[in-house]
Amino acid sequence: MAGESTERVVRHFQEELGLLKERLLAMGGLAEERVRAAVRALVERDAGGLDSVLAGDEPINQLHIDIDNRAFTLLALHQPMAIDLRVIVSALKINTDLERVGDLAVNIAEAAGRYLRHRPVKALVDLPRMAEIAESMLRDALDAFVRRDVVLAQDVLDRDDRLDSLKSQVFRELLAHMMANPATIEPSLDLILISRHLERIGDHATNIAEDIIFMVSARDVRHPGGRDFGRKPDRLA
Amino acid sequence: MAGESTERVVRHFQEELGLLKERLLAMGGLAEERVRAAVRALVERDAGGLDSVLAGDEPINQLHIDIDNRAFTLLALHQPMAIDLRVIVSALKINTDLERVGDLAVNIAEAAGRYLRHRPVKALVDLPRMAEIAESMLRDALDAFVRRDVVLAQDVLDRDDRLDSLKSQVFRELLAHMMANPATIEPSLDLILISRHLERIGDHATNIAEDIIFMVSARDVRHPGGRDFGRKPDRLA
Repeated sequence: MAGESTERVVRHFQEELGLLKERLLAMGGLAEERVRAAVRALVERDAGGLDSVLAGDEPINQLHIDIDNRAFTLLALHQPMAIDLRVIVSALKINTDLERVGDLAVNIAEAAGRYLRHRPVKALVDLPRMAEIAESMLRDALDAFVRRDVVLAQDVLDRDDRLDSLKSQVFRELLAHMMANPATIEPSLDLILISRHLERIGDHATNIAEDIIFMVSARDVRHPGGRDFGRKPDRLA
Repeated sequence: MAGESTERVVRHFQEELGLLKERLLAMGGLAEERVRAAVRALVERDAGGLDSVLAGDEPINQLHIDIDNRAFTLLALHQPMAIDLRVIVSALKINTDLERVGDLAVNIAEAAGRYLRHRPVKALVDLPRMAEIAESMLRDALDAFVRRDVVLAQDVLDRDDRLDSLKSQVFRELLAHMMANPATIEPSLDLILISRHLERIGDHATNIAEDIIFMVSARDVRHPGGRDFGRKPDRLA
């Protein structure tokens, strides 16, 4: 950096930080789109749509590595303090969460592909609803990151209960089908699995929202009152 | 830092880095012990043992926050470069993985508690075997972190396939039970769930091993050849 004016270094840092955020948003948008595409292909019984999801995780994987490298370079070349440091550390964590969401989109497409080999067990209403909630949580969590919006982050945390209760509803309904007709056991298991993948996408949005609250307020909301905030009891129903 | 000699600052940094590693190892030991306790209580049908697991995630949660703060402070107060920076960034990521392993121990105990309300579906042989493999992967991944041992980290990655094939075996066997006798559907689902939790513990050990290879060699093995190395196809069987 010798010879560069401080102002120029600061501007360079802020530009790079802006690019880092941009990539994270792009990655979030891709992850959300892939979840939506997988659930849409499930509902429409569109095997080709599932294949596209299965074949298309390369851009997210590339962004995952690119974002990690950018965050790493910013830490190595500059000595970010306070909020800037917290933003970069948060970006590293959010990057991990988004990569897992991309993986979960593939997991959903895999389960959906198996499901399509059977006759439909039921009309799919709750799963698309779960997907919508999970997608909106993810979108708003990233929006809260960029705008440093703690209120929106808290709102994301609050929506997780809805996802959990839909998951329980899906489970109870499918359990009844399985008990009544053993031929539905295998496809029902895949739908249960998909509901759990969607719930985990909500968990990742929750992780991101918690990181943002820490980033903005340096307040840790992850294990309040000795309880693990992020972890709900894992009930089947 | 004014007035302190460079030597003293460096020594302080290395001491703090040593403490950070110590805490991570302690956390890893706790997480591993909780997984073992949950699976043991399942096999021995020991409801009291499950209660202990359910009630005992506070120490891990405290370590999670403590380690995050330590890593953060090291980044903020010192300007670590190269390998030191990579060690701290890895510690942040490993911390997240270990916290999830602690959550998964609770999830296993929850599913086991439901399972114990039914008559045993089958002798539990493969699940304890899966637990052993997952625990050893976790232990060796942390060992590889402390010793910066890329060969051991690679060995952890190689063991993941075994876990995956045991999971498939568990699933096929339980599916047969469910088809033959609807009364076994509910408890079988909990065993399937436990096998998936154990597989995910292996995935977290895999994440850690990948981080270590990056940390030591600055080589990214996460998405080689355009494929996502960490993500196996999520098959039911």
